[in-house]
Amino acid sequence: MGVRNIRLLVAYDGTEFYGWQRQVGVPTVQAALEEKLARVTGERVNAIAAGRTDAGVHATGQVVNFRTGGRIPIDRVATAINSLQPYTLVARHAVEVADEFHARFDAVRRSYRYYLLRSGPSPFLMRYTCPAPDLNAMGLERIRAALPALLGQHDFTSFCAAGSETRTRVRRLERADLKERGPLVMLTFTANGFLHGMVRNMVGTLLEIAAGKRQLEELGPILAARDRRAAGEMAPACGLFLTRVEYGRRGQGTAGDPADE
Amino acid sequence: MGVRNIRLLVAYDGTEFYGWQRQVGVPTVQAALEEKLARVTGERVNAIAAGRTDAGVHATGQVVNFRTGGRIPIDRVATAINSLQPYTLVARHAVEVADEFHARFDAVRRSYRYYLLRSGPSPFLMRYTCPAPDLNAMGLERIRAALPALLGQHDFTSFCAAGSETRTRVRRLERADLKERGPLVMLTFTANGFLHGMVRNMVGTLLEIAAGKRQLEELGPILAARDRRAAGEMAPACGLFLTRVEYGRRGQGTAGDPADE
Repeated sequence: MGVRNIRLLVAYDGTEFYGWQRQVGVPTVQAALEEKLARVTGERVNAIAAGRTDAGVHATGQVVNFRTGGRIPIDRVATAINSLQPYTLVARHAVEVADEFHARFDAVRRSYRYYLLRSGPSPFLMRYTCPAPDLNAMGLERIRAALPALLGQHDFTSFCAAGSETRTRVRRLERADLKERGPLVMLTFTANGFLHGMVRNMVGTLLEIAAGKRQLEELGPILAARDRRAAGEMAPACGLFLTRVEYGRRGQGTAGDPADE
Repeated sequence: MGVRNIRLLVAYDGTEFYGWQRQVGVPTVQAALEEKLARVTGERVNAIAAGRTDAGVHATGQVVNFRTGGRIPIDRVATAINSLQPYTLVARHAVEVADEFHARFDAVRRSYRYYLLRSGPSPFLMRYTCPAPDLNAMGLERIRAALPALLGQHDFTSFCAAGSETRTRVRRLERADLKERGPLVMLTFTANGFLHGMVRNMVGTLLEIAAGKRQLEELGPILAARDRRAAGEMAPACGLFLTRVEYGRRGQGTAGDPADE
């Protein structure tokens, strides 16, 4: 069988993880997944994620790849992973891919969704939404009117967490829309890539526009400033989900949460 | 203002509570609520619940009453409660009621809903559903066919947790139905009252019927046996929600989760 490169679609509740990336002494998604993969494959493995989500951020459509010489049949991988704790991290699908496939570098498009809760507090949604009881119909209209200004290719430095190291801060935002479902407001963003903190900083700024603290005409100057201090406060992690990652030819199509359509 | 009797509609995520009733050394819903009420009213209060839910059981429509000489305006009570931790317990509504109103003794009808998850594991639904990946269309039909046998007035001793002390184990089940919503199966039960463990024991038995381990014709003999050992295994607490409590004239109508309709 040799060494296989396996692509996994995974979902996790980020509440009790300190983000994707391994850190000494705290539970992280990468450490939890690699621990499961070691049990499943009989080997130490290195898991590469499409999106290195921050502490508290959730995923319904994270994509991971790992290489293994272990012999478990591919159609048993997801079930074997899901038989192990913690159950806050599950595999939805596993497929063997070309050896050169890299979950992060080969991703051509990513989608994040942010959930706001307009009703009173809910003990069942508090882990998965940002409370927004004061977001009224006018606020929603303001967000809808502001979203187009974010679309297209921009230098998103103003929405990038300070200290983030990256080659370029230019990204192309292809989708930015708002949908309502009962008391939930869902903001969905699709781009060729996202900077560290970018979605949460955009949402935080949009919430300030909704509240009338900023005018929607400020978005252009905020982008032009290329300065984190120009934008609004960061929205909390609990409302954010990585929902979908798309690949070109080599990555063999799209992987994500069907509910994201 | 004198002493007021206040009726509260409350919701909670039962995952991290050891049930409703106060116990030494562990977090319970009653202790958490009474702690909040002490902060809100400036007094020690005694909270009486319509349903003394077990450890891990949730509520969207629990009803509680308490008496207080505190002066907080009635329309501020829910907001004040919700400003305090833990946020896994929230008040949805508060109303002043007649002094003789008793949330438990005056309730004339209660509804519980049990959630089964037919899809693969979900990190977001695991706290609120019982996994049932093997429950297929035939199993659902078997449950639908079995439910009517539970309706009406019966001695439900066979579905009552052993050791439960109660005057009579006769209850009148008025509603027992199954609805599907995507991968979720919802079993809703309405009765004039429920015995300790009754819903979870009925659901566990129905799951055995769904799996073909028991025949639906066994429900009659199970009820007739008046023996807990005649019925199936208890279903886990995490899938169960107290959704609605109804009152007669003195209790001033219905209180519950509108989603329960």
